[in-house]
Amino acid sequence: MTALDRLETPALLLDEAAMDRNIERMRSRLRQLGVAFRPHVKTNKSIDVARRLMETPQGPITVSTLLEADYFAGHGVTDILYAVCIAPNKLDHVAALQARGVRLSLILDSMETARLLVARAEATGQRFDLLIEIDSDGHRSGIKPDAGALLEIGRYLDRAGIPVQGVLTHAGSSYDSTTTDAIRRMADQERDAVLHAAGRLREAGFACPVVSVGSTPTALFADNLDGVTEVRAGVFVFFDLVMAGLGVCRIDEIALSVLGTVIGHRPDKGWTLLDAGWMAMSRDRGTAAQAVDQGYGLVCDLDGKPLHDLILVGANQEHGIVGHRSGQVEGAVHLPVGTQVRILPNHACSTAAQYGRYQVLGPGREISATWPRFSGW
Amino acid sequence: MTALDRLETPALLLDEAAMDRNIERMRSRLRQLGVAFRPHVKTNKSIDVARRLMETPQGPITVSTLLEADYFAGHGVTDILYAVCIAPNKLDHVAALQARGVRLSLILDSMETARLLVARAEATGQRFDLLIEIDSDGHRSGIKPDAGALLEIGRYLDRAGIPVQGVLTHAGSSYDSTTTDAIRRMADQERDAVLHAAGRLREAGFACPVVSVGSTPTALFADNLDGVTEVRAGVFVFFDLVMAGLGVCRIDEIALSVLGTVIGHRPDKGWTLLDAGWMAMSRDRGTAAQAVDQGYGLVCDLDGKPLHDLILVGANQEHGIVGHRSGQVEGAVHLPVGTQVRILPNHACSTAAQYGRYQVLGPGREISATWPRFSGW
Repeated sequence: MTALDRLETPALLLDEAAMDRNIERMRSRLRQLGVAFRPHVKTNKSIDVARRLMETPQGPITVSTLLEADYFAGHGVTDILYAVCIAPNKLDHVAALQARGVRLSLILDSMETARLLVARAEATGQRFDLLIEIDSDGHRSGIKPDAGALLEIGRYLDRAGIPVQGVLTHAGSSYDSTTTDAIRRMADQERDAVLHAAGRLREAGFACPVVSVGSTPTALFADNLDGVTEVRAGVFVFFDLVMAGLGVCRIDEIALSVLGTVIGHRPDKGWTLLDAGWMAMSRDRGTAAQAVDQGYGLVCDLDGKPLHDLILVGANQEHGIVGHRSGQVEGAVHLPVGTQVRILPNHACSTAAQYGRYQVLGPGREISATWPRFSGW
Repeated sequence: MTALDRLETPALLLDEAAMDRNIERMRSRLRQLGVAFRPHVKTNKSIDVARRLMETPQGPITVSTLLEADYFAGHGVTDILYAVCIAPNKLDHVAALQARGVRLSLILDSMETARLLVARAEATGQRFDLLIEIDSDGHRSGIKPDAGALLEIGRYLDRAGIPVQGVLTHAGSSYDSTTTDAIRRMADQERDAVLHAAGRLREAGFACPVVSVGSTPTALFADNLDGVTEVRAGVFVFFDLVMAGLGVCRIDEIALSVLGTVIGHRPDKGWTLLDAGWMAMSRDRGTAAQAVDQGYGLVCDLDGKPLHDLILVGANQEHGIVGHRSGQVEGAVHLPVGTQVRILPNHACSTAAQYGRYQVLGPGREISATWPRFSGW
């Protein structure tokens, strides 16, 4: 066990008790809604975290990269959904995962991709488990639930002997909500879009067993997910300032923070300089568009309590610039050189990606474990 | 040798010929100015790149983290400047590097840190090579060249038997310039600030042998660096869209790009979807404040030529959203699913940090080598 204040900085801290509470909150909510969970591991990229999320050691899980699929397959996970539309240059990699015994579900949203997959299946005998991506909110990919392409793709794949397993959507726009009522409405919209698409496929004679939705805000605020077969969510494990700004969590529920150390001061500007800059926090400025802009992060003491309304008002690669939220220069508290602070991140996914390990924070400011994580492709 | 179009995406491409030209440009400029070079390796974090930059296999180099110092020391580099003010919790690590035979120069900008270092030296016998950081432009740390603290720190350290080796500054504000004339003036300001500080230390009887300046813009546009003993710069090796926006390089001189693949379309919005999102590009939006906002990156063909004025107008974690710069929806070119594109990054430091290797691009769209790189602390 290492004492927190003995760590070299910057370091990524994971408050284990807060994480466990966040996981229990999601589990409890999904139990009430009567829906299965396929946790998204893109945020955590760690088997130590994922084991607390998964229903069984074999999964199911959702991934955002095939490197995630490789890593979790290496830890015995066999039921994996790759939730980004598939590209032809990844099919050899998909085949390698399938050869290891992984049931890897892929998604697509066009006839163009359907044709590429059928050509590949005909040329190589490769099999595919496919879901059609539905656009429930216009924020990026997917086809509209009432689009003609939905049945066209379903029929084309069925004729080729690759029956579509179901439909999937992600209400990414829920991140832009300004009230929890708006998140509830978005959860309804997400559910209705994908149920409408599933209904059309079923009317056309396809079984469509899978109806998959997911985002952390909609998963936690949905009132009713009848007809949905699985929920995907990932960021809820840690939460972050964007989620707090949405009203999805409280500040004191954020389980991830960056430990930084004071390296200097600019009293004329009201600044305290840290050794944690944008490389340590990521360049994510997700709270800039919210009611409360948290800069590059909210500065807390070693117990995780916000400190004198200080935020990272600026950042260079390895320098964090701490200032008062109001911009005030006079009366700034002096944090001596060597003082350690914990900085809550705007976005857990982008901040965690900057680190190769979690320093797991147990009771009493002790590091109880170090859990490896990975990044890249 | 792998053909470019066989790579799984996203991947980080490094155009070797362009990089070599960028390095020669900096070398040639510094030769003309008659000043030594201490390349900053924070951008590349790769011994394969750094070997082309260093004057000798032993250095000198500049680093932004002690992990960089560890890595380069492991490759035989012994003359290393850690250009972020030192914090007490890093002094054991510094001692370990010193024990390996590294001459590791540290910087400080306060009496507070001077006292911590003297206390450490007295308690443990550890020796330090120290430079005082000078603030030449108000952008972050350092003391003003005419501040009383300059001589106070110099005298205090000298009395403790730790003579100050010199002064150092970084004109980070040069990144905010809007003309190359403004960069030239910033180079004058950077030089004058540090020479003034060095002059004051010398008048007070200190030798002050090191006078160190550096940023890519000021290094390339300085007219005169008489009195400066070394220049530090790092991003020039690759360049990026921010540097092009400043007029420091041309778009076709950018050596770093991200290879991405088309995974779908939203014709109703004029969008093409890629498998390269903000995780692949980083969240850096450095061109947002420039005259030409390049979104999350400028989309090019496989030869690196800009493609139909397309940029990444948006990004999710693993999705890049390509659209026309003007926002036009009609008449968008159709890039078929599977098409590969090269995306030029806003900021080479933050984009490269997302990858564990460079795919080195030789002539004829062939990958001639794979060079490992690292991230983190």
